[in-house]
Amino acid sequence: MLSKNTLKFIKSLQQKKFRNQEQSFFVEGSKNVTELLQSDYEVSHVLYTQQFGNDHVKLLKSIKAEVFEVNQATLESVGSFQTNDAALAVSKSKPNIPINLKSDEWAIALDEVKDPGNLGTIIRIADWYGIQKLLLSEESAEFYNPKVLHASMGSFTRIRFYYTDLKSELEKSRLPVYGAFLDGDSIYETKFGKGGIILMGNESNGISKELESLVSQKVTIPRFGQAESLNVAVATAVICDNIRRNTK
Amino acid sequence: MLSKNTLKFIKSLQQKKFRNQEQSFFVEGSKNVTELLQSDYEVSHVLYTQQFGNDHVKLLKSIKAEVFEVNQATLESVGSFQTNDAALAVSKSKPNIPINLKSDEWAIALDEVKDPGNLGTIIRIADWYGIQKLLLSEESAEFYNPKVLHASMGSFTRIRFYYTDLKSELEKSRLPVYGAFLDGDSIYETKFGKGGIILMGNESNGISKELESLVSQKVTIPRFGQAESLNVAVATAVICDNIRRNTK
Repeated sequence: MLSKNTLKFIKSLQQKKFRNQEQSFFVEGSKNVTELLQSDYEVSHVLYTQQFGNDHVKLLKSIKAEVFEVNQATLESVGSFQTNDAALAVSKSKPNIPINLKSDEWAIALDEVKDPGNLGTIIRIADWYGIQKLLLSEESAEFYNPKVLHASMGSFTRIRFYYTDLKSELEKSRLPVYGAFLDGDSIYETKFGKGGIILMGNESNGISKELESLVSQKVTIPRFGQAESLNVAVATAVICDNIRRNTK
Repeated sequence: MLSKNTLKFIKSLQQKKFRNQEQSFFVEGSKNVTELLQSDYEVSHVLYTQQFGNDHVKLLKSIKAEVFEVNQATLESVGSFQTNDAALAVSKSKPNIPINLKSDEWAIALDEVKDPGNLGTIIRIADWYGIQKLLLSEESAEFYNPKVLHASMGSFTRIRFYYTDLKSELEKSRLPVYGAFLDGDSIYETKFGKGGIILMGNESNGISKELESLVSQKVTIPRFGQAESLNVAVATAVICDNIRRNTK
């Protein structure tokens, strides 16, 4: 039986304050919920419609969480989606643990990327390009924000992230830092090594002065038209694509 | 003097119905308004804050539109932005006129790309990569939707667009059609010609069966990780980047 207290608990997780306090978050929609249930996240509750239940009998039996069949209106009343005819799942969040980078791997570092949609899209891009580690400045969007998770389309389950002081992190790293600027070297000509950190800046202000001095090489996506810039998630994808096609 | 009727007229343009009826639209924020005022669009009204007025004296004098200095609250009451401390401008929209494609130029065709943010981001990408022509299926997002214009960051002023029946359009075109699929040839190996149509599909369903048969070559962005797909705007950028680096 799904209690009022449980519903109240889930609803509270719409707010960052309670996500931090409870060290829990929720995801919504068929794609994100099925990815979550197949991941190593510790899921505590799953609310699902009859249809979702019929479609995922085995998956729902395979997990330890409390599961509840509910109607669509209940899903929409506790979650953030206007329309959700599938499922919602609550999970424990992962602790903020330092990430060790090997010399032959790639990571993405975000300097105050604040828009949740951009962060979620970057998580999906990282997962597409096989980049599993994400360093985030403390002022960046929150990983477990429902809009971030939604835009990540399930990829959040495969990405390790670490909120940290990027300055000290980049200072102590031995990996080359490729920073995205509008006046750097063309990514078409850049010789990317076997590993490194791709540093992307804030939506309005780009990479901060403080971090600029820690960049090993400024890189730029060649422009053929007149737009002033590209969206930060779009630019991240184009840079990842150029790195992978160069080093595969 | 800014009349109540003018305010009511502007506010009505939040709705597609009135944008169509009046053949007018508005844009908001400093970047989009300044780009609009410097474009060949026929601007009818500009509402701006004192600060914006001080920053753009010459620009405001150079245009024929009716201009009004207003406070921020007025901008926010008629527009769609929660916060707008700069300006809002109303313009006549451009008629839906067929686009002729030359054999050595590129165009992007969108098959039911419905999310306004995606369309706006694609417009910005097209402008970055110097692709000025956009073909849209009738079911795609509306070009003059405030969310589209906002995401385009002023690039909408430089892009020609045409809403049409894509099937008949692609049938009569002599240009090669490169369609984005998950099971096509690698864009790293594709020999792109000097011109062509880049066809992108709906966010959930991809390119429709009806159009699939009109695709000259199915292309795919190589994947190095586990994400199921990329966002349609992100994929458009990566494909444009590969075309431009191949043919520059």
